[in-house]
Formats: sequence, C-alpha cells, structure tokens
Amino acid sequence: MAKKAKIGVLGASGYTGSECVRLLLRHPQVEIALLTADRRAGQEMREVFPQFSPFGLPKLVPIDSIDWAACGLDLIFAALPHGTTQKVIKDLVAKSPTIKVVDLSADFRLADTAAYARWYGHEHLAPELQRDAVYGLTEVHRDRIKQARLVANPGCYTTCSELPLIPLIDAKAIDLDEIVVDAKSGMTGAGRAAKEAMLFSEVSEGFHAYGVGHHRHMAELDQEFSNAAGRPVVVSFTPHLVPMNRGILSTIYVRSEKSSPEDLHALLSKAYAQEPFVHVLPYGRLPQTRHVRGSNMTFIGLAKDRIAGRAIIGSALDNLTKGASGQAVQNMNVLLGLPEATGVDQVALFP
Amino acid sequence: MAKKAKIGVLGASGYTGSECVRLLLRHPQVEIALLTADRRAGQEMREVFPQFSPFGLPKLVPIDSIDWAACGLDLIFAALPHGTTQKVIKDLVAKSPTIKVVDLSADFRLADTAAYARWYGHEHLAPELQRDAVYGLTEVHRDRIKQARLVANPGCYTTCSELPLIPLIDAKAIDLDEIVVDAKSGMTGAGRAAKEAMLFSEVSEGFHAYGVGHHRHMAELDQEFSNAAGRPVVVSFTPHLVPMNRGILSTIYVRSEKSSPEDLHALLSKAYAQEPFVHVLPYGRLPQTRHVRGSNMTFIGLAKDRIAGRAIIGSALDNLTKGASGQAVQNMNVLLGLPEATGVDQVALFP
Amino acid sequence: MAKKAKIGVLGASGYTGSECVRLLLRHPQVEIALLTADRRAGQEMREVFPQFSPFGLPKLVPIDSIDWAACGLDLIFAALPHGTTQKVIKDLVAKSPTIKVVDLSADFRLADTAAYARWYGHEHLAPELQRDAVYGLTEVHRDRIKQARLVANPGCYTTCSELPLIPLIDAKAIDLDEIVVDAKSGMTGAGRAAKEAMLFSEVSEGFHAYGVGHHRHMAELDQEFSNAAGRPVVVSFTPHLVPMNRGILSTIYVRSEKSSPEDLHALLSKAYAQEPFVHVLPYGRLPQTRHVRGSNMTFIGLAKDRIAGRAIIGSALDNLTKGASGQAVQNMNVLLGLPEATGVDQVALFP
Amino acid sequence: MAKKAKIGVLGASGYTGSECVRLLLRHPQVEIALLTADRRAGQEMREVFPQFSPFGLPKLVPIDSIDWAACGLDLIFAALPHGTTQKVIKDLVAKSPTIKVVDLSADFRLADTAAYARWYGHEHLAPELQRDAVYGLTEVHRDRIKQARLVANPGCYTTCSELPLIPLIDAKAIDLDEIVVDAKSGMTGAGRAAKEAMLFSEVSEGFHAYGVGHHRHMAELDQEFSNAAGRPVVVSFTPHLVPMNRGILSTIYVRSEKSSPEDLHALLSKAYAQEPFVHVLPYGRLPQTRHVRGSNMTFIGLAKDRIAGRAIIGSALDNLTKGASGQAVQNMNVLLGLPEATGVDQVALFP
Repeated sequence: MAKKAKIGVLGASGYTGSECVRLLLRHPQVEIALLTADRRAGQEMREVFPQFSPFGLPKLVPIDSIDWAACGLDLIFAALPHGTTQKVIKDLVAKSPTIKVVDLSADFRLADTAAYARWYGHEHLAPELQRDAVYGLTEVHRDRIKQARLVANPGCYTTCSELPLIPLIDAKAIDLDEIVVDAKSGMTGAGRAAKEAMLFSEVSEGFHAYGVGHHRHMAELDQEFSNAAGRPVVVSFTPHLVPMNRGILSTIYVRSEKSSPEDLHALLSKAYAQEPFVHVLPYGRLPQTRHVRGSNMTFIGLAKDRIAGRAIIGSALDNLTKGASGQAVQNMNVLLGLPEATGVDQVALFP
Repeated sequence: MAKKAKIGVLGASGYTGSECVRLLLRHPQVEIALLTADRRAGQEMREVFPQFSPFGLPKLVPIDSIDWAACGLDLIFAALPHGTTQKVIKDLVAKSPTIKVVDLSADFRLADTAAYARWYGHEHLAPELQRDAVYGLTEVHRDRIKQARLVANPGCYTTCSELPLIPLIDAKAIDLDEIVVDAKSGMTGAGRAAKEAMLFSEVSEGFHAYGVGHHRHMAELDQEFSNAAGRPVVVSFTPHLVPMNRGILSTIYVRSEKSSPEDLHALLSKAYAQEPFVHVLPYGRLPQTRHVRGSNMTFIGLAKDRIAGRAIIGSALDNLTKGASGQAVQNMNVLLGLPEATGVDQVALFP
Repeated sequence: MAKKAKIGVLGASGYTGSECVRLLLRHPQVEIALLTADRRAGQEMREVFPQFSPFGLPKLVPIDSIDWAACGLDLIFAALPHGTTQKVIKDLVAKSPTIKVVDLSADFRLADTAAYARWYGHEHLAPELQRDAVYGLTEVHRDRIKQARLVANPGCYTTCSELPLIPLIDAKAIDLDEIVVDAKSGMTGAGRAAKEAMLFSEVSEGFHAYGVGHHRHMAELDQEFSNAAGRPVVVSFTPHLVPMNRGILSTIYVRSEKSSPEDLHALLSKAYAQEPFVHVLPYGRLPQTRHVRGSNMTFIGLAKDRIAGRAIIGSALDNLTKGASGQAVQNMNVLLGLPEATGVDQVALFP
Repeated sequence: MAKKAKIGVLGASGYTGSECVRLLLRHPQVEIALLTADRRAGQEMREVFPQFSPFGLPKLVPIDSIDWAACGLDLIFAALPHGTTQKVIKDLVAKSPTIKVVDLSADFRLADTAAYARWYGHEHLAPELQRDAVYGLTEVHRDRIKQARLVANPGCYTTCSELPLIPLIDAKAIDLDEIVVDAKSGMTGAGRAAKEAMLFSEVSEGFHAYGVGHHRHMAELDQEFSNAAGRPVVVSFTPHLVPMNRGILSTIYVRSEKSSPEDLHALLSKAYAQEPFVHVLPYGRLPQTRHVRGSNMTFIGLAKDRIAGRAIIGSALDNLTKGASGQAVQNMNVLLGLPEATGVDQVALFP
C-alpha cells in the first residue's frame, strides 16, 4: 500500500471536528497526525470525547504551536468557528506551499466578498485566497475540486437544499420565483458551545423555527441557485430545530408549468443515477432523516402535491456527515486522488 | 354552588379520552360519571393510565352497556376512533333527548356528506345529525356552538392552521392561491394504537413527512377556508412527525399584494385581542410548541419573509389540549353556559 | 375571600423559580408581587419564559433593589443558586420581622453547620438562622413547619429517597447498613446554567452515572436517616441522568431479617394513607416518573426481590414539583395556614 | 482475497437482524446471500428498512422456503423471536452437515434444559443440540467457540453484567452474596413488535423499572456467575427502560472484604488489557452509553463507594451491537477463522 497521507484536524473539540476523527480513524489511506483545540490544548482527545478512549490519537495542541512549513501534513480539515478561519488559512498558505485545505466553516463559501461582508458583518480577511477557493458541493463541483487547493465545504442546510434543487434549476424545470424551503435540523447543527438555548431542557419535547427571514445559509443558497439559473434566484427559507441529534430534512415546495411531478422526479433520478452518496427514492416516497444517520448519504424524494402544477420534495441527510465532515472527507478523497467513497461508506445507523 | 353537571367520556383509554379526564378532574362544576373503553371494560382507569391512581373514578364499561335514557348524563365527550362515532351518537340521540355531545372524532366535521364519503371511504351513517352538527372551532363559531346539541370538535392540525388563517382570509388580506402550510406534530397525534411505525425506536432521533398530498385534515381546511373566503380555497398542506409527545407547529407561507406583513400582524392581533386561548406574539417573533404544552393556548406569530410581499406565520398549540380535549372542554363550557375558561386554564408546563 | 397573600420569587429566571410562578399563577389565595433575576433584571418574565406571555406579571428586578422593610410581602421563595442564599436571607431577616421564607437552595438544609462547611466547601454565613430553620419535608416535619419562619425545602433526590425510607427506618423494619439507592433524574435537575455537559446533543440518546461517591445530597440523606434511626446511617447513593426533562426514579434495595416485603409494603401504605401527595401503589407494582409529571405526587411501590430477605422499592416524583417548587408551595400553604393542597393539586400530564 | 463466506440472516425484519445486515454489508470477507422474514416475505429489504435502499440485497423469503442442504451457506445468524429457534435450528442441522449457526435468541443459552423449561415455560425442543451449543460471550469462551458449530449469543443485559463481574468472581475478589445489578436499557432491546407499552408517547419523557424480581436474563446471569464461582450465585437484578434507542448501562454494587476498589480495578484492567472490544476506563471514571453507540465496545469503569469495603462498577455497551449483532459477528469471525474485529470495528457515533 502507498504511504498514508498525513492529516490534521483543526478544531477537534467540536462536533464537526470529532466527526472528522470518527471517519478518518477507519480510513485506510490516511493517518491522523495533528489535532488542535485551543481551549482544550494539552488534553488527550479521550478527555474531550470519551468515545475515542480505545484509540491512539495525537494530543490536542493549540493552533499557534504548529510550524506549517515543517509539520509534514498533506491536508488539514479546518473545523473552526465561522470568522476565525480566514486568518488561520492565510497564515498556513503563506508558510506552506503544499498543504491542502478543506474548510468546514463558512469563511470561504461566498465567492462574492461583498456578499460575505454583508452577511457576516465584517470584511473578508483573505480575499486573494477566496478567488481560488472552490465551493465543495462534490456532486456539482467535482471537476473543479480536483484542481483545488482550498475547498470551502458547504453548509449542512445548503447541501440538503442544493442537491435536489440544482438539477431542477439547471434544467429550467421549475418556477424560480416560487420556491419555498422549509428546513428542519437536529441539534448538533448548533455546535458544542454552551448556550442556554441549546440545553437539553430547553429544546427537548418541543419544536420551533429560528432565524426567520435572515439565516446566513441563505447567502449560499442565493449564490448556488443563481449560478445554476444564470440569473438571480432568491428562495424562501425557514430553518427549524428538531429535538434530535443528527439529521436535516428539507421540505421543498416547487411549482412547474411545463414539467409534471413525474418529469421532475425522472430528472433527479437521472442526475444522480451514478452518484454513490445521493439516492433518489421511488416516485411518491419522501425520505426520513433516521435512515441516513451516521452515513454520508442524501436521500431525495419527490411527490406530487394535490394542487395541480405543484410538487413537494423531501431531502434528508446527516448534518454532521454529508452536511459537514462526511462531505469533507469525500472532498479530501477527491483532492488526494483516492476513490471518492473511501472511508466514508458507513451504512446508516437505524434504529 | 349549583349542582355539578354529570359528564361521560367515551373512549377513555385513548390519549384524547385521558386528556379529557385530566381536565375534568379539576373542573369545579362537573363530575365524571361515566367512562367507557370497550377493550379495557371492567378495568379501573388506574390500570390503563396509572397517573389517575390517586383519584376516585368510575370503572371502565363498554358502550353497549349504557342506557342512554336512564344514565342521567348532561354531556358526553366522544373520543372514539374515526368512523365509529356516527352510529354511537345516532343511537344516543334516538334514546336520550337531552344529552349534549362533543365529538372529538372526525365523524361530524364535514358539513358536506359527499366530501365525507370521498375522504373517509364510506357513506356517512348519520346524515340527518350532520345537518345540526356545529364545527367546534370555538373562537370562530362560538355563537352557533351555544345553540348546538352536537359539536364536532376540530382536528389538531386544522385548529392550528385555521386560527391564524381564517382572520386573514376573512379580511381578504392574503393571496388565496399561494398558501403553503408546513405542519409538524408530536407523536400523541397518532393515538395509542400499537403500530410498528409509532414505536419509540422507530420515531425517536428522526424526522419525516407523511400523508403527503392526501391527509384527511385537508378536507376540514378546505371547508373552513372556503367558507371564510366565500369561494373554493385549496392550500398546500404537508404534515410531519416530530420526536416529542405533544405539540403542533404550523409554519405557514403567505403572499399578499396589498397588505404588508405588519398589517397582517395587526389584523391577527386585533382579531384575538379578547380571546383567552389565542395569544398573538409581538411582530417578528414565532412561537415554540413547548411554551403551550399542557395548556389550552394557541400562540401565533408573524414575521416578514426576505422576499417582498411574503410573510411567514407560526402557530403553535398542544395537540391534545387546544388541538383536542382542551378545546372540547372549552366547547363544553360554552354548551353548559359556564365561563369559557373554567377548568381549562392550566399554565403551560415548561420545561 | 380573605385578602390574598403577597408573594415574591427570588431567582425567577431559573427552572425552580419559573415552576413556582407556574403554580402560583393558579393559586387562588396568593398574588405574585415580586420577581427577581439579577442577570435578566429589567426584562419582562415573558422574555425569559415565553410560556408566561399571556399573563400579567411583575417585571424582573435585581435583589439589591428590594426594600425588605417596605415591600409588603408575606412570603418569599428563594430559588437562588446554592451558596448565595444565606447572605440574602440574613439581610432580609434583619430588615423585615415578618416575611416568611421558603428556601429552595441547599443553604439551610443541614442542621450541622460543620457538615455544611465540609460538604459545601465554605463556612455557613448565617449559623444563627440555621438554628431556627426547619427542614421542609412536609409529610415528616409538618408540625415544625407550621411554627417556622424559615423553611429549608429539601432536595429533589432526597425527597424521593426519604419519603419511602424514613417510615421504614423509623419502624426499625430494615437493615440500616445494607441500603443501596440507585437514583435517576431528568435534566431539569441540573438547572438552567449554560454548561457543555447539559447541551441537548451531549445528553440525549444516552445514560450515565455522575457524582459517584460524593454527591452533595448525601449529606441530607445522612442527616434525615440518622435522625430517624437515632444512630448514624450512611447509604450507598448513586445518581444518574436520564434524557428527559422532569422526573426522578429511585430504585432502592433493602434487606430485612424480620419484616417480609409484604410487611414493609403494609407499613408504607399505612404511613401515607392520609397524605394527599404520597401514593403507595399496590404491592408488587413499581412507579414510573411519567405518571407524576407536572404534579406534586410521589408514587411509591415495593416488590419482593427473588433473593429471600430483600425487597426493591421504587419511588417517583417530578423533581421540579414535589422535588422542589411544588413542595415549596405545599410548605407555603402550611406556613400561611391554608389547606395544604391549594394551588398544587394539578393532575399529572401524561403523555 | 479468499472466496467470501456466504451468510444468511434469519429474521431480517427485526432490529437485531437489520443490525447484522448493517455490519455484514461492510464486512470485507462475507457476502449476504439470504435474508428471511416470514411476515414480510416477498418484500425487498428496503421496504422494511429504508436505510438499505442504496444497497443490493437478496429479497426477503420465508424460512420454510429454504433448502438447507442445497443453499450453499457457510453460516447463518438466527435473529428470531425467543422460543421459535430450537425447531428451526434442529431442522437445519438435520439437513445440512456444515452450516454454522450463531443464534441471537435465548433458545440455546441455558445449558441446563430444566432451567430453560422453568424460565421459558415450555420444554426445550432440541436438548441434544443444547449439549453442543457454546455460550457466546466471546472474551470468556473464545476457545470453545472456535470449536463450536452452534453458538448461543448472550443477551444484552447479561453481556453487560458478565463482562465486568466474571473476572472479579473468578478471582474470588468480591462477596458473592451482596451483588446488586441495577441495569438500564434503551428501547431497541424490546424489539420491533408493535406493543402499546413501547409506543413513543408511552416511553419518552419518563423512566421506569420492569420485570422486577423475574426477568429472564437472570437465568443466564445465574448460570455464568455460578460457573465462574464454582458454586451457586444469585444476584439482585433490576432492569429499567431509558427513553433512548441504543445502550445499556449496568450500575453494579459490590462489596469486598479483602480487595480494595483499586485492586478490583487493577484486576479488571489486567483481564481486558488485550481485548479489542472491552475497554476499562481509568480508576474512578464511570462510562456513558453514548460513547459506545453503534460500536462493538464495552466500556467498564470502577469507583470506590463512600462506604468502606464497597465499590461501584459501571458497564456500558450498545445493546444491538456488543449486546447482540456485533458480538454475533465477532463470534462469526471466530467460527470462520477470521481476525476477530473484521467488519465490526466501527467507531462509536457520538453525538
């Protein structure tokens, strides 16, 4: 076997970081060579995530302690909070000519740095890198990812909405001004930061919408849908929180004057027929999040509405896997020239 | 104090039946005089629902054993499965001229018996009673309920959608052909029948849509929205299951050319200003189901969408209380001439 | 009706504070006249707990702003964090000769101030008040509570273990050196402070023990069991966290050479025959937490073990109600000379 | 690579059956050649468990349709309901001289057929096979499993209790008459049969004990502990249900006059130092079920009690993996001469 690639995970004490570690531990062609976590620096990974107790893993170190030029890494996953990654990656790129980067934050997702500044409230700190960053929705941008050094891994909500909608928009099969995306996410999407609103007792046994009218993932949706359409597209998007750990379900309401629901379904089936991680269910069936839990799969279904000209689409994925770290490893495989499903082909854990 | 009204609950071994008992046990002006449960007949209520162990309650009897003419009841709640109630109530009405009925099933909700036959798959068995049945959405039909003998208590999904939408439709404030209702319900809405799909391990840690394009509550929505509009209205309606016991949240997408979101909010606030069980949140805030749990409240919120001309409405209630047995007791109070909030003014249980 | 008592709740932004408000809002003989919350001072209660949106409530104020001599209160509930109450109550008592206090913290539960210092890591700040404080396990110390000014409301775990065990210890019916208490609590017992370990994603879908060998509630158990036995008693006690909001179940393993399990059950049944809030189930049945949710009930059951001479006891209560605020209101009723169940007789919310 | 072994799963429509399929799908040296499910015969696996939709799997067939002599299978997993397997395996063994069997039911776990009849209420139907069956607690009986044809895979509760206790009993380190096992299980342990008591709304948001004094897993515990001790051992065992899908935590109370808690911990650490699927945590730490979810690991911890001479042991595993199908695949590997961790080395899914 070829020499294993040496991989680092920045931000290993968060949920997307630990999900990268879960997947990389069983990836036959990589070696976890570096784990960082500023606040937990000096600790063993098992103290932060006891599920890793049986495994040998590098001790957590602070990012500042890394000598990028000498560390010998082939690729890093940046699983840092939004807004902190641009500076870190700029520094890394300046010091190392070779380390590839899959960034799981939102810092490099928006090609338009003015849009970034508008949605995130501060100037982009590495606009020169942004130019070369590739948006990492693997199934859509695979060819560009192959050539990239810096991949901006998409958001969980956006992956879940873009996979079913981009082929339909691309084919001009649906009305672009009548798209409603009602999205529901498990709690891990909110991360591991201690916030009152995310306490078990606050969120169990209940359901609610949030970020109504102004969720940041809208900026990504706008970018990708507009690119696909060749003209500006703005969808109605409302996220909700479900009392479960993992999973996103997007229920998407579309209208089409010229394509029947059966046509739309056929179009999606054809678009993803060869994709290992996107599965289109039989016509009329909608997916459940539990059936993709822990896997890198996206399940997509489409049914006709009782109102003529309308269809209802369901799209389900695990927000930590295909919605974050699973797609990140998928992108790593593309970047390293490995078979795309290597180490990320876990079967869903249900029940 | 006046003599207490004698009340019966048919179907006391189900969730809406037990919720009636919970509320009636603390209602100062009624006495629970009869409890039926065919399959559990002969058992004590505490064997079926141990939470009632400390309370004296009548033993469960089969419906067939009741002598309607001689039982001395003032009112019964029929919490029987859909499709079985028409016959029971027909028999009761034939034998007793005075007992009032609040029916929690769907059997008398559709004024159009042809629509009933179409949605429920069999002929209506008591069309002559249907003529006098009043649809029990209390806030909308209170005056007619006062005069009724038979009240058809609305469905949980329908109450949750009708309360926010009827005032807007009534005022011709929204586009009638662009209404999308994305509804999410807790598991008690599925009842207590043992079904594989409702097992804990099947439904926890996951989320999914069901009944896409053909849920029976659509028939009620059609009826009430069309009545309010004075012309046929058909909305897009998709129910989902949330891994929680109680609660429905409807996220409703509306469009209006002439009314701003602020106008729509003002309209709802005014419509419900005097209602004890409908509370409109400040503009821009959407409700959470957990904040109405165990109470008879409906919380309604409205926010503007980022797309001009669109608004997003949230409506939350407890499906067993305002969505079923709480509204049933509210209707009982109206029928018996009691203050409407008597015995049904519990404060929500959060957390 | 007599003039309503004026009540204050210190620490109204926490779970036991809000549970006091839930109960007091429907108590016919009191008026909520004061709510404090230092960090949320200036806000309306509805911003902190939206379930109270429909109700008129005093605005949250800081404790320091209260003029105890002039506030006109009859009684306050202190629902403050452990360790902060001694100073507050000392100040209150110094300034007002009449306001009664029900303290929900642990600050006045241990009669032995040396034991307090040992378990809580700092000197007792109001030892002179400790002398007059009465431990508020209502069923056991009712007569002393009637005469008290300061009631130290018991902990949730301790109430749940003491109610079944004290009658048995008192009657010398069980072996004092072989008691194992395996206790399981819902998450609200951990309070509302934002801690990583209490996030939904950390605690859902899992189960674990904590505080093994050194949980502070042990000090209360030691005190009450030793008092009942007339000699030192130390039990084995291990708490666990259940992914649910409310409820404690204690599974208690006892041995008896002289009393049969049937005798032990008879003893408990007799001890609580007249108590409104302690219900002993039929011999051989153990309780479930869900059947006391939101109520002030404790359900106790006892079954024989398959090992001769051993019995297994189950005890279930709602940690926020009988385990905290419900018992606090029960104690308030005793202090104010009101019927003990007034305002705290809610029927459990199941499902 | 050598030819893949051909494997059948009897009872593939239940949870332990589907868990076998999840693991076998990613096992590099086996091929799933047969799936049975009597009530779902004729359906595709994806209709019964949609998570398998992306995979090619044999259609479900009835057991009666199988020609054991000609089917060409190397090994079958019997994941059938208790009480139905003896007849099926007897038939298989009569017709095929070579197919190996890992039975996940309780049908062959008790070496003493009289004990079987007593606990299960009917005569053993294949006593001659029972003689050759090996109890499949891999870490304890590995050498005998290697030689076996029929492995009786242990119960979930029993694996969780036996792994920590057998080394201690074996070493005569603990008092055999003072062992209390308080066990807590997730809901999948109850299987997929539709029962009212297992509905989401019945079991969420609550906690309770069941089978008090008479759970069938006691028979297995008695057998294995008595074997280890060389004299009869009967432990106190009480199972509880936790509102979660997967996981068992056993909290075990032991007493030792001669060994300190540190000694007991050292003994366990040494016993399992080389085992891939049993991990002993550092002294004083107890495990959480969530950290073994979906993996074949057992985490064991031991802490001293505050009472001299007593220790508290925690043992956690996933009831469907190490507690059932994971250990079954581990046993298959032993039977087939494959490395023991092949295909069953998934990292736990947390959160």
